[in-house]
Amino acid sequence: MNFDKMTERRGTHSSKWDKMEQLFGVSQEDGLAMWTADSDYETAPCVIEAARKAVEHGVFGYSWEYDAYKEAVAWWMRTRHNWEVNPDWVLSSQGLGNAIALCLQTWTEPGDGVVIFTPVYHEFALKIGKNGRKVVECPLKRVGDRYELDLEDAQSRLTGNEKMILWCSPQNPSGRVWNEAELKAVAAFAEKNDLMLISDEIHQDLVYPDYKFVPTAVAAPESLSRLVTLTAASKTFNIAGQRTGNMIIPDNDLRNAMRAKLYQMDYAPGMLAVSMITAAYSPEGAEWADAQIQHLDRNRKMFDEAINAIPGLNSMPLEATYLAWVDFSGTGMTDDEVITRIRDDAKIAVSPGPSFGIGGEGFQRFNLATQGARVEEAIDRMQRAFADLQ
Amino acid sequence: MNFDKMTERRGTHSSKWDKMEQLFGVSQEDGLAMWTADSDYETAPCVIEAARKAVEHGVFGYSWEYDAYKEAVAWWMRTRHNWEVNPDWVLSSQGLGNAIALCLQTWTEPGDGVVIFTPVYHEFALKIGKNGRKVVECPLKRVGDRYELDLEDAQSRLTGNEKMILWCSPQNPSGRVWNEAELKAVAAFAEKNDLMLISDEIHQDLVYPDYKFVPTAVAAPESLSRLVTLTAASKTFNIAGQRTGNMIIPDNDLRNAMRAKLYQMDYAPGMLAVSMITAAYSPEGAEWADAQIQHLDRNRKMFDEAINAIPGLNSMPLEATYLAWVDFSGTGMTDDEVITRIRDDAKIAVSPGPSFGIGGEGFQRFNLATQGARVEEAIDRMQRAFADLQ
Ligand SMILES: Cc1ncc(COP(=O)(O)O)c(C=O)c1O
Ligand SMILES: Cc1ncc(COP(=O)(O)O)c(C=O)c1O
Repeated sequence: MNFDKMTERRGTHSSKWDKMEQLFGVSQEDGLAMWTADSDYETAPCVIEAARKAVEHGVFGYSWEYDAYKEAVAWWMRTRHNWEVNPDWVLSSQGLGNAIALCLQTWTEPGDGVVIFTPVYHEFALKIGKNGRKVVECPLKRVGDRYELDLEDAQSRLTGNEKMILWCSPQNPSGRVWNEAELKAVAAFAEKNDLMLISDEIHQDLVYPDYKFVPTAVAAPESLSRLVTLTAASKTFNIAGQRTGNMIIPDNDLRNAMRAKLYQMDYAPGMLAVSMITAAYSPEGAEWADAQIQHLDRNRKMFDEAINAIPGLNSMPLEATYLAWVDFSGTGMTDDEVITRIRDDAKIAVSPGPSFGIGGEGFQRFNLATQGARVEEAIDRMQRAFADLQ
Repeated sequence: MNFDKMTERRGTHSSKWDKMEQLFGVSQEDGLAMWTADSDYETAPCVIEAARKAVEHGVFGYSWEYDAYKEAVAWWMRTRHNWEVNPDWVLSSQGLGNAIALCLQTWTEPGDGVVIFTPVYHEFALKIGKNGRKVVECPLKRVGDRYELDLEDAQSRLTGNEKMILWCSPQNPSGRVWNEAELKAVAAFAEKNDLMLISDEIHQDLVYPDYKFVPTAVAAPESLSRLVTLTAASKTFNIAGQRTGNMIIPDNDLRNAMRAKLYQMDYAPGMLAVSMITAAYSPEGAEWADAQIQHLDRNRKMFDEAINAIPGLNSMPLEATYLAWVDFSGTGMTDDEVITRIRDDAKIAVSPGPSFGIGGEGFQRFNLATQGARVEEAIDRMQRAFADLQ
């Protein structure tokens, strides 16, 4: 459990490290990869041990989403998030991007509107578009140093053709942990407009001390007949490359509809992935996840302090996620000027703000799920790249 | 490389072993699992080693279907099957059941007819039905001890509403290796009726001495503009639980259509699966696959000889696959009587013939991809269960 132990991900077919030159023009040789949301350190020993055991057995035949896996998901939701989940409610998907696609295809038709609150995880809009549905962007309101919902404004943007909300909780990229009142308000908004509510809670375990994540199902049990909750061990335990997520669906009809969709696609999770997730959602996994938060808390404090000391830069205080959302608008530079400096001078690959939709202009997203030394290196590079502002 | 080394799959979440009671009523305790198509022995050392290396790295972040994987697929097709594949033609799916679903959704509409030649892998008809397309069953013709195409009869069954053929080569469950003339005839049939041709070649590496598998793309290059070839390391290397297959699509337009479908689903293969497949398609993997065929050849000869000695039973001579297709019609028993004896007396879980469509009545399918000792055990049990016939 040493989050500072260096790893070398270059040359391991890591998208984050091995594609930064191709995708962002950041030198493969001496670039720093801080874009896509995975972590640079090793996962929990219990997860590695489960994979090791399966590998040493040497037989990789057909398996399924067995009870121990579903019970582990339920155990995690109960002990970590105070949500009583019946293991029968748990289905599996090929990751949460895939789960979102499955939800879109199950509960909306081509041409239907799908509501998102921006800036938000860019794949929401991309998946809606690729599936021939209409993106209905409802901007969040910036209030001081955080975003809040503006449901009145959102209501005014609806045409009546909307069928679904893709909801991100905690929120990527702003790091907001929505409180119960906010969750209840979104649920009421869904009900009022008769929208399916897809609550993507992939970042639920990455919440900083002083904040408390509440599942939408717990805050707004009145929404269960329209609610699908998406969770995963993939961010928490750095196993996104294993491509497996959970869909928790308390409503029988909704769950049967999704089950039919999964049969139609012939989807079944990979056996190594299932054993790793089952091992992750355990007391040992919980201990590791707690230690990880301590590590991330140090990283983000160090990062925010240094970044905020650069005139014109402002890193939004995170309530959750390891994704720092940095506002460069105070520099007076264009997004292009900012990106050029980060890419060519700092040589850091980041996720560009505008890709997150309305409200993303002027921002860049930095992934801090790495060794402390790499955060220090990023700080150093940013200070030098923006030295003229100091 | 010891195919006779015993393994214990009970309690490892193996579908084949841990679900035989639930699905077939065959005692979990002393049953023999010979149904679904995976193997009971360990995979190739090079595959285990690749998985081990990835597991020991300990970081399981995002990856992709990288060049080394596509080149390994191309290398395998070239050196093993004499097909020059451009690595760019290779896409990845969540296994071949999933690939079939993706093909149906990409190139047919609900209500369209999809042609299959029965008896054939039962999931073909199931996937067609679950996707709201129409199953058009065209029976194969039994000629002596093997099946042949009857394209004249097939033509008479078409209504003009058909859009696709799901073609199985080599054929499951009969074990036929189609020759070039037959492949050319199917391609001509596809062209004449303007049908997409999906060639499922998952069993391509499980071909017995004296038979030669030819990819449809090689036998009928004139079909490339309508051809999608599906292959996988999953049967050959016993990694079906890793849920990853290859779709080889030489035609640019067809490939782009499938690529768009994959984006829409947010599909990407698991990183461990990709590294295992890449390791499998190698000289070491080839050597192991050759040794496996020797083992399977011994198994099936032993099995066929003993089964054919029971009056009324006839195991079809396999040209390919490890799936023995046994005709019980000579016993004069009903399918129910046969199944009851196999289940309750022999305590073997097999795949029931009728599930493979027209022509499957009277048959049961036995999976021989196991240790020699288990085949002997199966023989012994069958001899006792059908002792009254002898
Ligand atoms: C909110 C959110 N949902 C989904 C995903 C993607 O999940 P997966 O890798 O399981 O497709 C991410 C990844 O960054 C995310 O931030
Ligand atoms: C002809 C054929 N296609 C596809 C499959 C299933 O492949 P997968 O496990 O990759 O879905 C099988 C499995 O038995 C098969 O025999």
